[in-house]
Amino acid sequence: MKNALRVRRSENFADWYQEVIREADMAENSGVRGCMVIKPWGWAIWEGFQAKLDRLIKETGHDNCYFPIFIPVELFEKEASHVEGFAKEMAVVTHHRLVNKNGKLVPDGELESPLVVRPTSETIIGEAMARWIKSYRDLPLKINQWANVVRWEMRTRIFLRTSEFLWQEGHTAHATREEAIEETRQMLDVYRQVVEGSMRIPVIAGEKSPGERFPGADETHTIEAMMQDGRALQAGTSHFLGQNFAKAANIQYQDRDGGLSYAYTTSWGASTRLIGALIMTHSDDDGLRLPPKMAPAHVVIVPILRDEAGRDEVILAAEALAKRLRAQRYDDEPVRVKVDLRDDSGANKRWAWIKKGVPLVVEIGPRDVAAGTVAFVRRDAIGTKRSASLDEFVAKIGDELNELDQKLHDDALAYRKANMVEGLANYADLVEHFEKKGGTGFVVGKYSGDPMIDAKLGEIGLTIRCLPHEQSGSEGQCLVTGAPATVDAIYAKAY
Amino acid sequence: MKNALRVRRSENFADWYQEVIREADMAENSGVRGCMVIKPWGWAIWEGFQAKLDRLIKETGHDNCYFPIFIPVELFEKEASHVEGFAKEMAVVTHHRLVNKNGKLVPDGELESPLVVRPTSETIIGEAMARWIKSYRDLPLKINQWANVVRWEMRTRIFLRTSEFLWQEGHTAHATREEAIEETRQMLDVYRQVVEGSMRIPVIAGEKSPGERFPGADETHTIEAMMQDGRALQAGTSHFLGQNFAKAANIQYQDRDGGLSYAYTTSWGASTRLIGALIMTHSDDDGLRLPPKMAPAHVVIVPILRDEAGRDEVILAAEALAKRLRAQRYDDEPVRVKVDLRDDSGANKRWAWIKKGVPLVVEIGPRDVAAGTVAFVRRDAIGTKRSASLDEFVAKIGDELNELDQKLHDDALAYRKANMVEGLANYADLVEHFEKKGGTGFVVGKYSGDPMIDAKLGEIGLTIRCLPHEQSGSEGQCLVTGAPATVDAIYAKAY
Ligand SMILES: [Zn+2]
Ligand SMILES: [Zn+2]
Repeated sequence: MKNALRVRRSENFADWYQEVIREADMAENSGVRGCMVIKPWGWAIWEGFQAKLDRLIKETGHDNCYFPIFIPVELFEKEASHVEGFAKEMAVVTHHRLVNKNGKLVPDGELESPLVVRPTSETIIGEAMARWIKSYRDLPLKINQWANVVRWEMRTRIFLRTSEFLWQEGHTAHATREEAIEETRQMLDVYRQVVEGSMRIPVIAGEKSPGERFPGADETHTIEAMMQDGRALQAGTSHFLGQNFAKAANIQYQDRDGGLSYAYTTSWGASTRLIGALIMTHSDDDGLRLPPKMAPAHVVIVPILRDEAGRDEVILAAEALAKRLRAQRYDDEPVRVKVDLRDDSGANKRWAWIKKGVPLVVEIGPRDVAAGTVAFVRRDAIGTKRSASLDEFVAKIGDELNELDQKLHDDALAYRKANMVEGLANYADLVEHFEKKGGTGFVVGKYSGDPMIDAKLGEIGLTIRCLPHEQSGSEGQCLVTGAPATVDAIYAKAY
Repeated sequence: MKNALRVRRSENFADWYQEVIREADMAENSGVRGCMVIKPWGWAIWEGFQAKLDRLIKETGHDNCYFPIFIPVELFEKEASHVEGFAKEMAVVTHHRLVNKNGKLVPDGELESPLVVRPTSETIIGEAMARWIKSYRDLPLKINQWANVVRWEMRTRIFLRTSEFLWQEGHTAHATREEAIEETRQMLDVYRQVVEGSMRIPVIAGEKSPGERFPGADETHTIEAMMQDGRALQAGTSHFLGQNFAKAANIQYQDRDGGLSYAYTTSWGASTRLIGALIMTHSDDDGLRLPPKMAPAHVVIVPILRDEAGRDEVILAAEALAKRLRAQRYDDEPVRVKVDLRDDSGANKRWAWIKKGVPLVVEIGPRDVAAGTVAFVRRDAIGTKRSASLDEFVAKIGDELNELDQKLHDDALAYRKANMVEGLANYADLVEHFEKKGGTGFVVGKYSGDPMIDAKLGEIGLTIRCLPHEQSGSEGQCLVTGAPATVDAIYAKAY
């Protein structure tokens, strides 16, 4: 059977990815280096993600707020390892005016001190926390912002790596180390709930090795997902910052005994990168496949209008069905239904919605109206056009969406299981495995914690994705150094 | 009676404004020149506004999307009057890296061509529209984005004029002039619905005079509100851009006859400035007053816990009341209730919530629990502590909120009416009026349309706020030039 996309996953995964995005009309490269335009279909998916995550962020006691887009370079100089990690790739504002010189606009009004477009906001939020926190009564302080950030990137790919991206960044301050670590863990679990529960992307939660930590963090925790080319994608990170940023920004509080202590801080973020993960986890050679909880439309109804006769009846029947479906609920919300009345053929419309990943595409023609039936395809089985009575279709809408939801998760989990490798003996095996298999999949192996490991893996394009929270506890030898080791690690190539 | 704020409106309006914001803990100046930090209470109000406006933007057929924060200067050079209007006050990115030189971070990696942090997105969205629009079938194209924008400002004031601010900007393209003008009008009316209907700020809708138009627009329409110092604030603008941006960006489409035509475009925006308008319209010398539809909490319940005895019963009663109130609806949503269990005195808590503008502050103490009553104050009459049975309070919650909602609107409208002046004879009268009255209020007078008028008014710090859509149709003499004129205009000082 011919597929809707011109490129197959198995042939050229990177081109296939671009093709899914283009055919689903989700986003495109802008004329501006490394920046993307997120188009309505891509944006609607992001809005759905935002709504789900924002609700959980609020339910766990965080308040939204907003901090400046510009960060003075002096603030960046305060936290040494943070500087090292970020200073290499930022947009720097040096002027506050353009003047017209012979028809060309040139920068003018040089700033006394340059400003950086935020790559992340620990420094500027730390400065605010130092103003706001005076006593233990002001703790914990738990805030979040939805914002755009910029990290200059030379090689970009839509959603996965763009100079400007959108995210939320949570920032909290606590009186004790234990409470801050608990917060770090809790928010990682919040990410897991949305990414696994709603986006249906299976993830492995764990801690980053030292070389992969957020610059300035004591611990970085992550959820890691496997894409359909076997590479890993970091789907959300949560950082325990210890007292590093508190000391750099002077976030001190008076404790119950009147003494002065530094707070413990955390930060955690999830970004538009997740839309890339959604695409690379679930899509197939016919385009995007959306888990129902993330679909801007659960059902699209395409009226089949071959001639003028019966046209009104068909449209009326489509609208009536839409109304009945909207009265049903799925995922605690009304079922989302579109009726596609655009001026195009039924087949073109059906394929357009399939490529956009809509869970159920329904067709109603004059014969269906007469018979009280609909014809439909579900996105996980588009080769099978099914028929049902209107009543039956309405009654089963929740079941259909639930089955699809489960199917996408099961498929993704099965793919990951099939591409997990255990039992490699040593570094030579590791190198051979990735060369032989073209560099994909997750290898589970031991890790000794030697500080040289991250750098050595970097030389062959590998990283430790995480030290899973669920550990086997067995003993063995470090896959890189050969030293005795008990810690399990995931070794993989990554986005 | 003593007031909760240290500064009265009548003494120093500008200081009073800052004091309202500080005492309501809504926002503050950041360490970054001209940028503000929006704190949780201010942000929650903005989120409420966003939700209401976003719903109407979608209901009128617009899709949300997202465009890059950076605009290449070349794009700016294309539309001449747009350049003139914006080129003087923008943040310019010239480098993409910082390097560490003797412990100081200095810009490195100079860009071949500078990028501007968007002050507005007509240019970059115009470029995208030119890619997307091929035929009349692609029209109308109706999109919107929620974004941060930057216009470098030397003198800033929180919410009212900040270098970075947040807004939505709608951008549409149409086949005909009439349809584009209809869109311009429709979106102005959407702003009016939210600003007047939910924020309860009375506005006058009209068209801007040529000197006050958006740079590059053929027509700018506006809703103008009067603040409590008599000055005008532009609460939302909607621009008919004619074919100016379409020609600059080459937005052409093939019409039904196969010919090639330029589209007509519009843009319209509303910003965090509106939070400033909300404050300056409704607040009093005791702090913020929130119209109920904009209040993050409709009711705050303060349990009065004088001693340990009865403590649990009081908290239980407070929570039970909160639950009953949340089961009531107001403005199509559940009533929003907070129970304030912070460790502080009842009086401190009551005043804190009054200064934050919460519509109803309720106190429950042990005696109330025994009697089945509550004591409460409504924000428009805080001197009157009232008592009611629990049942009565729950049953009347909607009435109380409606009465307050109406009262705030009536007060604001009464203020505006009392500060509208008609019947001035000539320019000398106009000058004298503003000098004598300290420069406040709206003067309604005739306007001849002479191109020199905007500049002449500028010399004395006045502007034409708008030519109201509702015109008297009478004849008279232009207040500035003395020439015969039929058009009514609003003359005022403005924010
Ligand atoms: Zn962890
Ligand atoms: Zn108008």
